[in-house]
Amino acid sequence: MSKQSRIYGAVEAGGTKFVCAIGDEGGKVLKEERFPTQDPASTLARMRSFLRGGSEEFGALAGVGVGSFGPVQLDRRHAQYGCITRTPKPGWSGTDIVGGLAREFSCAVGFDTDVNAAALAEHRWGSARDVQNLVYLTVGTGIGGGALVDGKPIHGVMHPEIGHLYPRRHPRDTAFPGICPFHRDCMEGVASGPAIQARSGATLADLDAAHVQWELEADYLGQLCAQLVLTLSPQRIVMGGGVMKQAQLLGPIRQRMRHWLAGYIDRNEVLSPDSGYVVTPGLGDRAGVLGALALAIDAAAVA
Amino acid sequence: MSKQSRIYGAVEAGGTKFVCAIGDEGGKVLKEERFPTQDPASTLARMRSFLRGGSEEFGALAGVGVGSFGPVQLDRRHAQYGCITRTPKPGWSGTDIVGGLAREFSCAVGFDTDVNAAALAEHRWGSARDVQNLVYLTVGTGIGGGALVDGKPIHGVMHPEIGHLYPRRHPRDTAFPGICPFHRDCMEGVASGPAIQARSGATLADLDAAHVQWELEADYLGQLCAQLVLTLSPQRIVMGGGVMKQAQLLGPIRQRMRHWLAGYIDRNEVLSPDSGYVVTPGLGDRAGVLGALALAIDAAAVA
Repeated sequence: MSKQSRIYGAVEAGGTKFVCAIGDEGGKVLKEERFPTQDPASTLARMRSFLRGGSEEFGALAGVGVGSFGPVQLDRRHAQYGCITRTPKPGWSGTDIVGGLAREFSCAVGFDTDVNAAALAEHRWGSARDVQNLVYLTVGTGIGGGALVDGKPIHGVMHPEIGHLYPRRHPRDTAFPGICPFHRDCMEGVASGPAIQARSGATLADLDAAHVQWELEADYLGQLCAQLVLTLSPQRIVMGGGVMKQAQLLGPIRQRMRHWLAGYIDRNEVLSPDSGYVVTPGLGDRAGVLGALALAIDAAAVA
Repeated sequence: MSKQSRIYGAVEAGGTKFVCAIGDEGGKVLKEERFPTQDPASTLARMRSFLRGGSEEFGALAGVGVGSFGPVQLDRRHAQYGCITRTPKPGWSGTDIVGGLAREFSCAVGFDTDVNAAALAEHRWGSARDVQNLVYLTVGTGIGGGALVDGKPIHGVMHPEIGHLYPRRHPRDTAFPGICPFHRDCMEGVASGPAIQARSGATLADLDAAHVQWELEADYLGQLCAQLVLTLSPQRIVMGGGVMKQAQLLGPIRQRMRHWLAGYIDRNEVLSPDSGYVVTPGLGDRAGVLGALALAIDAAAVA
């Protein structure tokens, strides 16, 4: 075997699109393909076909990593390991995402949630390289979060489902019922991209800076950050996703987080407005697929 | 050195009382003393005196563990490591709890929050021996929580401060303002022992089962459990403290947790009323001091 570095397959399996890549140990992507998520059979066939092509072009894969939309079964002892469990997305409940990959490519396979994977990528190559405990939040079509403790993704009984925590309703937002099919006015129900659209008839980017929607969004996401400080106690919160492309949200979110903590937490590294405690992803949109690459590398390392 | 098992010192440093013990590797307590928490100097002198006496009676201590009320500084690289940082408890802000112990007893010293210590004890000897990720909650004078991930206490930027999360207010509890000096109506402000007393003029035990206070308490603590499922994703929640002596609360708390999760989480091990997901401590009131013993054992093991 030559001295060339090992090659990995990476798949960000999203609810709206799949991003597949071939990459190396250093996080360098050699080839990439994105395509819309359709029915499970054709989507997974296309994923496999990409990985086969990559392996023919660059050599045998040392590992494959998949970061998937959820909820997923992460317990290796469970018969449903590697599957999406129950999702409102038509046709996808019970879909086995990683089944057969290990056999087909004769390599280790890593599997986790898309947001745990993104947290891993931000820890390895992005905005959270200097800390071991962090949360990665995505605020877009939905709201979700992944968390690392001591540098490793949390699983537990399932995996964090941070986006379905309840905020206290803002006094200027009492009429809007919320859009979450499970909880109506949980965080996802009042602060996701579709919630903004349902309330205001527009995206945040299209609304004037003085529009109340900006105030609501910062308040709800600030509450969410405060809830994370009080539970997971992260050393950093990295906020990505479509809504967070409005980077001017960061300042008001930090301010509202501080408001909701109400003086109880006295750590300057959390509270200082310029502490960099709440940040946008260093890897931008690439956190998901690079996270899948990190999962592949880690799976191969312990195999 | 003889073959006799190693001996450890353990201190549960509580806001109202200290419990000091000498114990062995198996969690057996050989000697114990409890005394009220007074000013720092005399309280810590009494703690040291107990440990000295224990060491004279049973032999050199292989380790000392302290589980302390908080907030505390757990970062070993920090100048304030081992101190209570800022507390409303008069005279105790900045108190160095573990300083000098290592030198005086020439042994390893373990230090953590009282609730992280209790979580460790329940994991090693109590109600959570079969899981690696768990939360220990105490509901009494205050509400606090500790959490283990992969069998180890979470620290992060500080440590979890679970009791200060906000619940949604119960429709039958709109008049009570809450008693938390920081947040008014956070969990501790509406559901701790003193909150029950302030609202109802009695303890839960003194109130008829039909009194609304029972319904409020179960609802708030059920919300708290739901918030923990969505963030820390524990495999078990162990609920101790004075209020939880009313063990008939467990059923309604599980029911309200299920209500607040609203069908989003579909794991039977969480939702089934008899799953044993939310339980009382296997060690009862002993979780705190035995947790301190576990801290001592672990500190000596890595020293």
